[in-house]
Amino acid sequence: MKLLITGGAGFLGARLARRLLASGVLDGRAIDRLVLADLAAPADDLRSDPRVEVRVGTVLALAKALGEERFDGVFHLASAVSSECEANFELGMQSNLDSTRALLDALRAAGNVPKLVFSSSVAVFGSDPALPLPAVVRDDTLPTPQSSYGVQKFICEQLVADYTRKGFIDGRTARLMTVSVRPGRPNGAASSFLSGIIREPLAGLEAVCPVSPETEVALASPANTVAGLIAVFEAGRDAFGGRTALSLPALTVRVQDMLDALEKVGGSAARARVRFVPDPAIARIVGGWPARFESRRTAALGLTADANFESIVEQYLRESR
Amino acid sequence: MKLLITGGAGFLGARLARRLLASGVLDGRAIDRLVLADLAAPADDLRSDPRVEVRVGTVLALAKALGEERFDGVFHLASAVSSECEANFELGMQSNLDSTRALLDALRAAGNVPKLVFSSSVAVFGSDPALPLPAVVRDDTLPTPQSSYGVQKFICEQLVADYTRKGFIDGRTARLMTVSVRPGRPNGAASSFLSGIIREPLAGLEAVCPVSPETEVALASPANTVAGLIAVFEAGRDAFGGRTALSLPALTVRVQDMLDALEKVGGSAARARVRFVPDPAIARIVGGWPARFESRRTAALGLTADANFESIVEQYLRESR
Repeated sequence: MKLLITGGAGFLGARLARRLLASGVLDGRAIDRLVLADLAAPADDLRSDPRVEVRVGTVLALAKALGEERFDGVFHLASAVSSECEANFELGMQSNLDSTRALLDALRAAGNVPKLVFSSSVAVFGSDPALPLPAVVRDDTLPTPQSSYGVQKFICEQLVADYTRKGFIDGRTARLMTVSVRPGRPNGAASSFLSGIIREPLAGLEAVCPVSPETEVALASPANTVAGLIAVFEAGRDAFGGRTALSLPALTVRVQDMLDALEKVGGSAARARVRFVPDPAIARIVGGWPARFESRRTAALGLTADANFESIVEQYLRESR
Repeated sequence: MKLLITGGAGFLGARLARRLLASGVLDGRAIDRLVLADLAAPADDLRSDPRVEVRVGTVLALAKALGEERFDGVFHLASAVSSECEANFELGMQSNLDSTRALLDALRAAGNVPKLVFSSSVAVFGSDPALPLPAVVRDDTLPTPQSSYGVQKFICEQLVADYTRKGFIDGRTARLMTVSVRPGRPNGAASSFLSGIIREPLAGLEAVCPVSPETEVALASPANTVAGLIAVFEAGRDAFGGRTALSLPALTVRVQDMLDALEKVGGSAARARVRFVPDPAIARIVGGWPARFESRRTAALGLTADANFESIVEQYLRESR
C-alpha cells in the first residue's frame, strides 16, 4: 500500500514512519511506499529507506500533487503549533485550516476514498469561564476551545467527519494528548516544562517547574501516541464508533508524581536539578487543561494509557541513548 | 447606528428589518441606516424606507465592500439551506463557510470591532448512531452534525467565537429552531410539513403529514425567533455567558398538539384537510432532531419559548391577513 504522512519529518511523524517501516505492514497490507511530506526533509535513516519518498513544502502548496498520487492511507499530522497560531492568526488559519481543507479536497478529487487519520489535539478543550469543563472529559464532552489552534483543530475535526459522511474519504480523528517526554530543547509552549523537568535533569541540566507539585496533568508517551494513531487507522468504521473525534488515552499524574519517577529512574541528583519557580501565567494556562479522561470508545478499541510515569521516563532514557 | 442584515430580503431577515425599523432603536441607539444584503432586493415596503439601503449579490462577492462600510452591528443570516448543501457540497461550503469567513475577515479589516449576531441552526445537532443525542439538549450538549449544512454552521460558530476572543469582532451565535408557521409554499425541506399542516388547511388546501401524531418537535414562531436575535444582539458579553453558541428557546409539541391548535383556531373543517401519509424517510430525519431543550443561558437572558402552539397559529393568521 501507498501511505502519506504529512508532518513526516517532525517528532511524531518521523517516529510513526520508523514504526511503520519496521513493521512493514499496516491494516494487514504491506507498505510499498511511504511518502513523507514536511517543510524540511526527514532524517537520513528515513530518507535512505528505499520505500520512502520525500516531498518538501507546505501542505497547502503540495496538496494538489499529493492528491494525484492516490494514496491508500494518510496520516495528516502537519500543523502549525499553538503558540505560532496565537501569535500569527493568518498563519494558523492557513497552516491548519486551509491546508487541511486543500488536502481533503485533493484526496476527494483522487476518487479512491483513502483512509485518513487526522491528528487533532486535547487543545480543543478549553475552560470557557461561563461553561467550565467537567472534572472528567468523556466521549460526549463539548469542546469550547480557548485558542486559535484549538478552534482550527476542532474545525478540521468537523471537516474530516463530513468528508467521511459524504464518502469522499474514510477519515477519523484522534485527539493527541500532551506528549512527554519529548526529546530536544525547551520551546515557547506552555507545556514545554512537562518534558523539560525530566529531559534536562537527566542530561545534567537545571530545569524550572512553573506550576505547583499538586498540579494534575494528562500525558501520553511518544510510543503510546504513535500506537494510538496506528490503532485508529486500523479500526473498522464500526469499531471506531461513529465519526466524532476520539481522544487518545491519557495518564493522569501530578507533577509531584513525575518528579518522584524522575528520582526513581534518574536518582536524587537528577531530582535535585528541578527548582520550583511559580509562573502564574503558565499555571493558569495549564490549570485550564483537562487532566482526567474517560472514554468508552478508546476502551472499546483496546487503547490504554501508559501504565505509569516511571515507564515513560524509562522509555525516554532507553531511546535517547 | 449603521446596521447590516445579510439575508435581509429573506423571510427572517425582512421580518427582522421591519421590526428594527418600526422600533427605530437597537441596543439603546437610534438606527440611522440599515443595509439589507441578499441575492435579491427586498420587498417594496423595506426599499422605500429612507433608512434602508440595498446591496444585491452573494456575501462572498459583497464581503469586502461591506467591510469598508464600517457597520456598528451585523446580523449575519444569509445562508444556503440544508437541502441545497446536501445536494451540492461545493455550493454549501462556499455559501456558508467561505462567505462567513470572508465577511468576518472584512469586518476585522474595518477595525471597529462591530457587534455581530450569527444565525446558526438546531441542525448542528444530529444523532450519531454511536453517540446518540441526550433526551434533552442543554448548554453543554455536544453537537454531532449529520449534514453538511449542520457542519458548516457549527464551523462558523467556532470562527465567530475565535474572531471574538481575538477582539476582531464582538460576535455571538444564536442557534435558530425550526420556525413555524412559515408563510409561502411547501419546499423540499424535511421540516416543510411543520408549517404546511397549518398553513395549507387555513388557506382551504389539503395537506399531508408524513410523521405520526405522537412525533415531538421543537418549534419557535417567527416573532419569537426575531425577538431572540435582537435579545442576543443586545446582551452584554457577561450576560450572554461566554462565546459558545446559544440555542434559542423552543416550544416542544407533538404533531397532535399542532393539529389540535389548528382545529381550535381554524375549525374542524381546517383540521379535516390534514391527512396522515407516512413517509419513513422524513420520519427518520425528523425523529433524529432534538425535541427538548433546557438552557440556563437563555433563561438568564430572559428568553422564553412561545407559550403554546395555539398562540403561534393565531400569530400566523393575524399576520397573513
